[in-house]
Amino acid sequence: MSAYPSHPRATIGRYRNRGAYDFQAIHSVVNAAPVLHLSFIPSETDPFPTIIPLLGQMGSFANPDADPSSEPLDLYIHTHASTRLVKLVASQTEDGEKGLPVCASAALVDGYVLALTPFNHSCNYRSAVLHGYATPVTDEAERLYAMELITNGLIPERWGNSRVPPTKTELQTTGILKVTIESASGKVRAAGAANDKQDLENEGVIGKVWTGVVPLWQTLGEPVSNEHNRVPVPAYLDNWRKEANERGEEYAVETARKKY
Amino acid sequence: MSAYPSHPRATIGRYRNRGAYDFQAIHSVVNAAPVLHLSFIPSETDPFPTIIPLLGQMGSFANPDADPSSEPLDLYIHTHASTRLVKLVASQTEDGEKGLPVCASAALVDGYVLALTPFNHSCNYRSAVLHGYATPVTDEAERLYAMELITNGLIPERWGNSRVPPTKTELQTTGILKVTIESASGKVRAAGAANDKQDLENEGVIGKVWTGVVPLWQTLGEPVSNEHNRVPVPAYLDNWRKEANERGEEYAVETARKKY
Repeated sequence: MSAYPSHPRATIGRYRNRGAYDFQAIHSVVNAAPVLHLSFIPSETDPFPTIIPLLGQMGSFANPDADPSSEPLDLYIHTHASTRLVKLVASQTEDGEKGLPVCASAALVDGYVLALTPFNHSCNYRSAVLHGYATPVTDEAERLYAMELITNGLIPERWGNSRVPPTKTELQTTGILKVTIESASGKVRAAGAANDKQDLENEGVIGKVWTGVVPLWQTLGEPVSNEHNRVPVPAYLDNWRKEANERGEEYAVETARKKY
Repeated sequence: MSAYPSHPRATIGRYRNRGAYDFQAIHSVVNAAPVLHLSFIPSETDPFPTIIPLLGQMGSFANPDADPSSEPLDLYIHTHASTRLVKLVASQTEDGEKGLPVCASAALVDGYVLALTPFNHSCNYRSAVLHGYATPVTDEAERLYAMELITNGLIPERWGNSRVPPTKTELQTTGILKVTIESASGKVRAAGAANDKQDLENEGVIGKVWTGVVPLWQTLGEPVSNEHNRVPVPAYLDNWRKEANERGEEYAVETARKKY
């Protein structure tokens, strides 16, 4: 098993060659995204699904040393203990149900792809859409595992370099949800512009319109100390910034240079 | 009227002071986000809502000179003409219904907020969640309006500087949806770290843990020309890059410096 189960709801329809279903493709996008979008149906009487932007990471408490490239993981979600989402998840689980059906989406845009005609414009991107059942995490050890996973997933080495363990109140007011994945799909575009033959052969077009890719990546800037801060910027933060910035730029520029 | 209608589904529950409901807050986030997440309920038999990451912009064909800071707009969505989403929207509109109930979410992360304890960690961000009915745009003039709006919204001045108008086939295979907004909410955090008194007064903590904000913004890199490109990088692209990069950095750093 190297991929999540396939399902029509999680099958790429357009540009099928961009589809990516393996664990590595899904996990890497969710874990690299600075924000996730979680969708659920909040009410039986309201026709609209809703989305909450929030933070989360893929991990496995049962199998903490799981290899993300070859083993399935759960999606751990961070929220406040008294949100509408947490209450809804709790009520769906109490009823003996599997949990709240949710969909999580993560996307990273790596470049704007400028073709000769607007129609052929595109983006370079990596995206993942996961469907699963959300349940509350109540076991204290698993909750702590998830909090550390999410903190260090977003800011490497931060958990152990901050004031831990959390106080009783901090633990009580944090809501941790686990999404057990039922199906998932990823989609990736990572190449230069694709232009039509007619446009390439049209002197009035090719002689006038610039075509190529404007690479895009996230830059982590110089840390800004809090007014109460008393210590110099630690090496683990500087290393993280440097590596993340270099990796982001390198990926965006390399994909921009690839022939479609 | 300076804001979209209020509704419990679109009311901020946690951190109410971060809520932003005015047109400007909503429009600016949607239009600045490089990707939108659109949620809908794809099937009556499947329990899961789904999300599709896609491109869109706020605009008004009926009122093209609308002031985004004081007038309501529609959300125009770009997709392919034969996607599952387009088919579903068409079927929901044919039945004499208002359209497909959807939720759109956009989020920009402007910084990682590092407090003394993981519990007080946060992000600086701007987010918007919109609910409305999606309908197909069939009028040719409105479709062209939306295509130009989306192209120029993402890459300023690009439409007129590329090969237009679109061919008949290009028009036919592009799917344009309009979401009429029923309710919307935004949420913004834009400040330094907030630390608890106990942690600030604890010598073992304040003397050891770095606290502050790592600003985050998107960088548009040096354009990478396509193998067929024959013209130099135009000024409108260079200006866009320069201005967007400066604006992104400035906003992220300024908010990082604000006292909570």
